[in-house]
Amino acid sequence: MLSVDLNADLGEGFGVWTLGDDDAMLEIVTSANVACGFHAGDPAGLARVCRAAADRGVRIGAQVSYRDLAGFGRRFIDVTPEDLAADVMYQIGALSALATAAGSAVSYVKSHGALYNTIVTNRSQGRAVAAAVHAVDSRLPVLGLPGSAFFAEARDMGLQTVAEAFADRAYRPDGQLVSRGETGAVLHDVDEIAERVISMVTAGRVTAIDGSTVDVSVDSVCVHGDSPGAVQIATAVRDRLTAEGVTLAPFS
Amino acid sequence: MLSVDLNADLGEGFGVWTLGDDDAMLEIVTSANVACGFHAGDPAGLARVCRAAADRGVRIGAQVSYRDLAGFGRRFIDVTPEDLAADVMYQIGALSALATAAGSAVSYVKSHGALYNTIVTNRSQGRAVAAAVHAVDSRLPVLGLPGSAFFAEARDMGLQTVAEAFADRAYRPDGQLVSRGETGAVLHDVDEIAERVISMVTAGRVTAIDGSTVDVSVDSVCVHGDSPGAVQIATAVRDRLTAEGVTLAPFS
Amino acid sequence: MLSVDLNADLGEGFGVWTLGDDDAMLEIVTSANVACGFHAGDPAGLARVCRAAADRGVRIGAQVSYRDLAGFGRRFIDVTPEDLAADVMYQIGALSALATAAGSAVSYVKSHGALYNTIVTNRSQGRAVAAAVHAVDSRLPVLGLPGSAFFAEARDMGLQTVAEAFADRAYRPDGQLVSRGETGAVLHDVDEIAERVISMVTAGRVTAIDGSTVDVSVDSVCVHGDSPGAVQIATAVRDRLTAEGVTLAPFS
Amino acid sequence: MLSVDLNADLGEGFGVWTLGDDDAMLEIVTSANVACGFHAGDPAGLARVCRAAADRGVRIGAQVSYRDLAGFGRRFIDVTPEDLAADVMYQIGALSALATAAGSAVSYVKSHGALYNTIVTNRSQGRAVAAAVHAVDSRLPVLGLPGSAFFAEARDMGLQTVAEAFADRAYRPDGQLVSRGETGAVLHDVDEIAERVISMVTAGRVTAIDGSTVDVSVDSVCVHGDSPGAVQIATAVRDRLTAEGVTLAPFS
Repeated sequence: MLSVDLNADLGEGFGVWTLGDDDAMLEIVTSANVACGFHAGDPAGLARVCRAAADRGVRIGAQVSYRDLAGFGRRFIDVTPEDLAADVMYQIGALSALATAAGSAVSYVKSHGALYNTIVTNRSQGRAVAAAVHAVDSRLPVLGLPGSAFFAEARDMGLQTVAEAFADRAYRPDGQLVSRGETGAVLHDVDEIAERVISMVTAGRVTAIDGSTVDVSVDSVCVHGDSPGAVQIATAVRDRLTAEGVTLAPFS
Repeated sequence: MLSVDLNADLGEGFGVWTLGDDDAMLEIVTSANVACGFHAGDPAGLARVCRAAADRGVRIGAQVSYRDLAGFGRRFIDVTPEDLAADVMYQIGALSALATAAGSAVSYVKSHGALYNTIVTNRSQGRAVAAAVHAVDSRLPVLGLPGSAFFAEARDMGLQTVAEAFADRAYRPDGQLVSRGETGAVLHDVDEIAERVISMVTAGRVTAIDGSTVDVSVDSVCVHGDSPGAVQIATAVRDRLTAEGVTLAPFS
Repeated sequence: MLSVDLNADLGEGFGVWTLGDDDAMLEIVTSANVACGFHAGDPAGLARVCRAAADRGVRIGAQVSYRDLAGFGRRFIDVTPEDLAADVMYQIGALSALATAAGSAVSYVKSHGALYNTIVTNRSQGRAVAAAVHAVDSRLPVLGLPGSAFFAEARDMGLQTVAEAFADRAYRPDGQLVSRGETGAVLHDVDEIAERVISMVTAGRVTAIDGSTVDVSVDSVCVHGDSPGAVQIATAVRDRLTAEGVTLAPFS
Repeated sequence: MLSVDLNADLGEGFGVWTLGDDDAMLEIVTSANVACGFHAGDPAGLARVCRAAADRGVRIGAQVSYRDLAGFGRRFIDVTPEDLAADVMYQIGALSALATAAGSAVSYVKSHGALYNTIVTNRSQGRAVAAAVHAVDSRLPVLGLPGSAFFAEARDMGLQTVAEAFADRAYRPDGQLVSRGETGAVLHDVDEIAERVISMVTAGRVTAIDGSTVDVSVDSVCVHGDSPGAVQIATAVRDRLTAEGVTLAPFS
């Protein structure tokens, strides 16, 4: 019986500002990467998302970021490992309190935006993130890209790594993502996206941007919550997976 | 055998900026009210204070505040109870992660500055703070002023309240503090301060600003860490208490 | 030939977050109250609004606020007059540079949210705002509520005051606004709103919430830019004014 | 009659936090690089520094930075040119209002910390800073490192560039600064520092870290205001220059 996790970024408003349709996405995904206040998420808004996730039995993860509200965490910051580790611990803890108050808990950690991309290759920042997770709770799994420097560091510390695949992103022949700046990096066709997810989840393979076939390891599929058509795409992915007999469930 | 706790506000720098002498104060106090990032305290600095406190066996409390770095949490903000409660949960959690990583834990909660003063009388904000503490961990004691609206709300929820007395502040005949704006509100004479602390701790009494005698209940004595002469005053208070045979120990 | 100014709050997004439809509103209003970064508005977004306003010949005003991104400037903050005055000067200057770079200029100042409401009655904060405007450029008019403490202070300093009426707000018999918390404080019926604006602008009168008639002085009509139906209401107000032969033009 | 400008970074506290001795430095320097709120400087504190500078006839420059209070502007941020240009315009304008209110004006622009270092070589960020200055006021000179990408861009736009030399920093044989991370990058000996400044200002030469002699162009000498011994070093530099018959005066 094949099973896969479906994750999305939620809680990404701030105060009066909203982003995406959290309630709709919570009906679709099995894991919610909830912002922690550094790239998005005021505490009251995060508390509401945590309660909504807890009500629906959706697992809560801490989506940690550089400290950058103005840039939504999408800009690389050359922060020292010591500062980054403390920033990550602070964020995990902050969200944990809100998740606990909602009757749930933070049960994994994922990096956001520029930090996510940076630690695919930046070893010292990747180690800082892994060390922060380990220091707060060494049983917390980390979500990320297989083959990343971050995963290597995380495994060295004994953290569980959860391999993530992207529903709407093009892959390079080496299994890494095509950079957002390049043509064709983001897919928009609902059927194509659903089809690729099926291939990744059931066959462990996806067609790279050059037409070659790449092996991918998938414990969790990331769907976006804030792009135009996000809910429609996420629904299609979920429906196709279900139709193929794949169970949607939080990763174990 | 008489015993009392000695607490001070620590971790109140931010990034490159420092305030007070945390290391010196950690040699004196038994409980450290550590800032949580909303009025002061960047995560890396807070992590360092938590490690230093853990190393010396000083208990760590979360000192929660309005979100107001520019005003150091000293300005009343008319925040809704929902927002305030979430802000407080967020701060407790954030510091908890750093304290945990330091091998310690947040073991009580105290409000800072304008929030501290406001909830002496403001019932809805007091209830929000108490509810936040209760939601995160109902076993966490709260430090505050006996007779405050906050304490009434906290006890209604079943929280343990820890009565605090101020070493260097003048008292009104009704047992409340003389407002900082008024003449004589803050004491500066080291011997007088030490003498008053002895009276409060050993006799449960202090001379009010009008010369009358007031009963005070003291589980913990607050000494300031950031004023001129702070270390000297705190040392004198500690030495006098010890000389009188009072044990300095975290409240139970 | 009767003429009136039409103003709305614009530039109230922040980074990735948007609020309202600035481009649509700029086709309707004659004066844009542009946020200055303290309750909303990242510099790049503000620069875009300034350019769009300059392109359409819409006048730019600085909408100054308490420093409170998380609360969108809607929470009273007990800031000292000295801090408030400096905050206001800082904001006016910041927006001025962006307006200048767009080929325009800041040509008036309006307060936002809780600050706007506070200085209707709070004399010392009202004086601080007026003093700040005066110190930066004593020729800058201020938009506000007739009869407010702010206007009294502003006139004492020799500032030009521009009386503002609210299209969609209920009035008390004394000419002040019904508080948002009370029933009927905000009007939603497009025709009724347009009708009231005509009465205020052409007859200087409006029906108060108790049915009595109140005199109102109107140099500028405020329409909201971020509520549901905002563009529709603003369009109706503009169309009715034009149909009645009222010219829409920036206040002189 | 030889003349040189002496500049230092001032206004680098934030709210309750202070840094350096602004009043002492204002007795020494001829130009004050005043922070603009993005790496340091709350508006009320900046207003005070502007008034103090105006009172003493010290020229005020805007010291612009990445938006990074937590990192004091010392961390590279991969901000887009559009965002950076708007950030710089916002900061110049904000300080201009405070300088104007103090009876003075912003009369030049200097970059701070990581931004300063980045635009020595990063052409697109350097162009963004130059374009921002040009858009706000094309007559504003920019202070910076001779030979930098920033200066090339600034001159292309017709901005006046003011060559700066560092009193307490070691130089490479190519005239660039030795990175702070390297041994010997920062000088501490008061006499040696004063001697080097004399050589740079009167002979246009300095001994590089490898012992070779480098030509340097100096319109302004930067002394630090926040390091230990800062006031003593700045005083020594000023006294030596005066003793050698060099007039200290703002650059023209």
